[in-house]
Amino acid sequence: MRLADSFRSERFGAVRIHELQRVIELDSGALGDGFSAGSRVVSFEALRAVESQMVIVVPCMNESRSVIEGVLSGIPHDCLIVLVSNSDKLPVDRYEIEAQTLEQFCRLAGRSAISVHQKDPGLAAAFKAAGMEELIGEDGLVRAGKGEAMLIGMALAAMTGRRYLGYVDADNYVPGAVHEYCKAYAAGLHLAESPYSMVRISWHSKPKLRDGRLFFSRRGRSSEITNEWLNRFLAEYSGFGTEVIATGNAGEHAMTLDLGLKLRLAGGFAVEPYEYMDLFEQFGGILESASPDVMASSVPVLQIETRNPHFHDNKGEEHVQGMRMQALNVVYHSPVTLPSVRQAIIDFMVAQGALEAGQEPPRERVYPPVGSLDLELLYDGLDAEALSFRQFDGRASAGYTAAPPIERHSIPRPRV
Amino acid sequence: MRLADSFRSERFGAVRIHELQRVIELDSGALGDGFSAGSRVVSFEALRAVESQMVIVVPCMNESRSVIEGVLSGIPHDCLIVLVSNSDKLPVDRYEIEAQTLEQFCRLAGRSAISVHQKDPGLAAAFKAAGMEELIGEDGLVRAGKGEAMLIGMALAAMTGRRYLGYVDADNYVPGAVHEYCKAYAAGLHLAESPYSMVRISWHSKPKLRDGRLFFSRRGRSSEITNEWLNRFLAEYSGFGTEVIATGNAGEHAMTLDLGLKLRLAGGFAVEPYEYMDLFEQFGGILESASPDVMASSVPVLQIETRNPHFHDNKGEEHVQGMRMQALNVVYHSPVTLPSVRQAIIDFMVAQGALEAGQEPPRERVYPPVGSLDLELLYDGLDAEALSFRQFDGRASAGYTAAPPIERHSIPRPRV
Repeated sequence: MRLADSFRSERFGAVRIHELQRVIELDSGALGDGFSAGSRVVSFEALRAVESQMVIVVPCMNESRSVIEGVLSGIPHDCLIVLVSNSDKLPVDRYEIEAQTLEQFCRLAGRSAISVHQKDPGLAAAFKAAGMEELIGEDGLVRAGKGEAMLIGMALAAMTGRRYLGYVDADNYVPGAVHEYCKAYAAGLHLAESPYSMVRISWHSKPKLRDGRLFFSRRGRSSEITNEWLNRFLAEYSGFGTEVIATGNAGEHAMTLDLGLKLRLAGGFAVEPYEYMDLFEQFGGILESASPDVMASSVPVLQIETRNPHFHDNKGEEHVQGMRMQALNVVYHSPVTLPSVRQAIIDFMVAQGALEAGQEPPRERVYPPVGSLDLELLYDGLDAEALSFRQFDGRASAGYTAAPPIERHSIPRPRV
Repeated sequence: MRLADSFRSERFGAVRIHELQRVIELDSGALGDGFSAGSRVVSFEALRAVESQMVIVVPCMNESRSVIEGVLSGIPHDCLIVLVSNSDKLPVDRYEIEAQTLEQFCRLAGRSAISVHQKDPGLAAAFKAAGMEELIGEDGLVRAGKGEAMLIGMALAAMTGRRYLGYVDADNYVPGAVHEYCKAYAAGLHLAESPYSMVRISWHSKPKLRDGRLFFSRRGRSSEITNEWLNRFLAEYSGFGTEVIATGNAGEHAMTLDLGLKLRLAGGFAVEPYEYMDLFEQFGGILESASPDVMASSVPVLQIETRNPHFHDNKGEEHVQGMRMQALNVVYHSPVTLPSVRQAIIDFMVAQGALEAGQEPPRERVYPPVGSLDLELLYDGLDAEALSFRQFDGRASAGYTAAPPIERHSIPRPRV
């Protein structure tokens, strides 16, 4: 893969946000790592070194079998797949169909994967036993929400002992885009050269229906607003306006697990913008950091503009309005957000009709770091009680000895 | 890349048409070549060996700069790009914009490319000098048409001395699909293991607007009819109904140049279905073949169903109706088509309102093989007279000695 060089970045404490880098070539052939006029090549070997340590978590809710098959086909072979489903059980058990699809793919492709259903009572019990009661709702099950699905996926990823974690939404009609996201993750994590790094994707365009024809929109409806306020957060500190953040709502992103295990994930659609806020809170140098090792290192955030259009199902206006406001809620409530920005957020939300005058934006739910979990207890709980917990090993069908992606005796000790 | 195995094929003389094979994984990582339960892996190294000998010809007509950039970004680095444009010169010279886009891409990506405009008087003069006056229309220029653009591209490809040729339409909104086509070409040409082989793509689905929402159609409007009649052609000989041909109209296809140089290409949109008919005519064992070496070998045609949706501009109903009828015209007029099929074609066309009762379908234009050209004369003509003929060498900017893709002293001698 060949990326345009990134020359500029903005620093906030240990966090270094790099300006958006374009993908120039999806496939740079057999070229070795290197620079040339304005671009950087990440070689096949370097990509593979990351991929073979990467878990791709696919949060999934009620997608059709053929869309899921397409997404799976785009994930590079050496990545381990983790499917976290919150699909309906009625009138048909969609999770069973999803698990079958995944199992069949693993058998055909000789691959390994893990899957679990978010509403499995055994999953809730396992998280409770492992030390994260916060994740459990009033019905005794893990709460619904995208952030919650991502947290589950991160915990499963951590148990495999792999080093990197990437997220790919299941509602993607373009397998080639999924492939590009994974390659961009690997390229970015390779280039970042830090044990605490993150790669966030900005898609090139999004096809939308407008007046009965297709229009390739450059900006998402909610990301413009999220990015604007995150940038305003930064500008208020530096005194210089900035547009460096272009990936506030990036559903597609990846990180080292060393970083991921320290992050506090937010619930629902607040999860993606809150990752930025949590980086600022924990590693911004404003509050005291619980991680002096990270502060002594640096936390690069690479932002990559992919080539493929981001082509997915239209979830409707309500979904978008929800995402937009959840992002503002987390910026508003962050202890590192300056008072002038907080006031401006209230003014904006009132003007948008999203808030009554005189009220405060609601707080989003924020979970403790996955690194605080006892992963061995989590595994034991899953293994014993979570009926939806499956480990597929497609290599077994090719005559190898079956080896599940997670092995009890080699689950890493919590690092936080 | 991992493909589903193809177990069945239909033989017609030396031509062996393999049933459609699905792509299972876009990227099979570091796996070596091999079989496993129902699938075949083509390794990175094997793909690259083909790509480094492959020319990708991009016929282009009035596409926007950003669409062309996307297509270029999807073509694997080791492939040589040939852009054949028939874009408008007025009110702005679109070819100049295209050539600039290509030049800039080559500079950024350190790549080589060739471009030419179909209506360049110097191009017409060069083809005339090289021995293909048939290509020239009444206005003294090369005729318009997709087949004609493909022929020009093939001649340029032949001059580079590379071994493989693939076609990718410029009107593709999904760079990842372009990437998958090229990988599928390389995988198929590797698996075909014959100096005379062809790979044809059937896309997974085509997003269409229907009643204001998107619908993923599995079949193109004209390909169903083209495939039906090509299969009927075969069935009439074998006495067994067949659906083996799924790629009669495949714009995306590739072949060895050893085969390509022997083919007679048809003009316009007849070019793709006529490739099948010409294979049957030349290598079907019905007529005497001018190529005993090919007859002694075999001509595998691999058909690959790619994963990505084929997402391009809607060219309208007239275009489709034209394509459909051109396919029927070439089947009708082939000397190897049996009389019963010819009569059925007439009946069908009359019923469709595409032909007056009692008339014959029109003949499509068919050109002599590119292998009959004097390539050195063609090069000299281009070099001396074709102002639109450009060779870009992006490696020069990285400090290498510039080496144009075509070098006069190493143009291969015609092989036909």
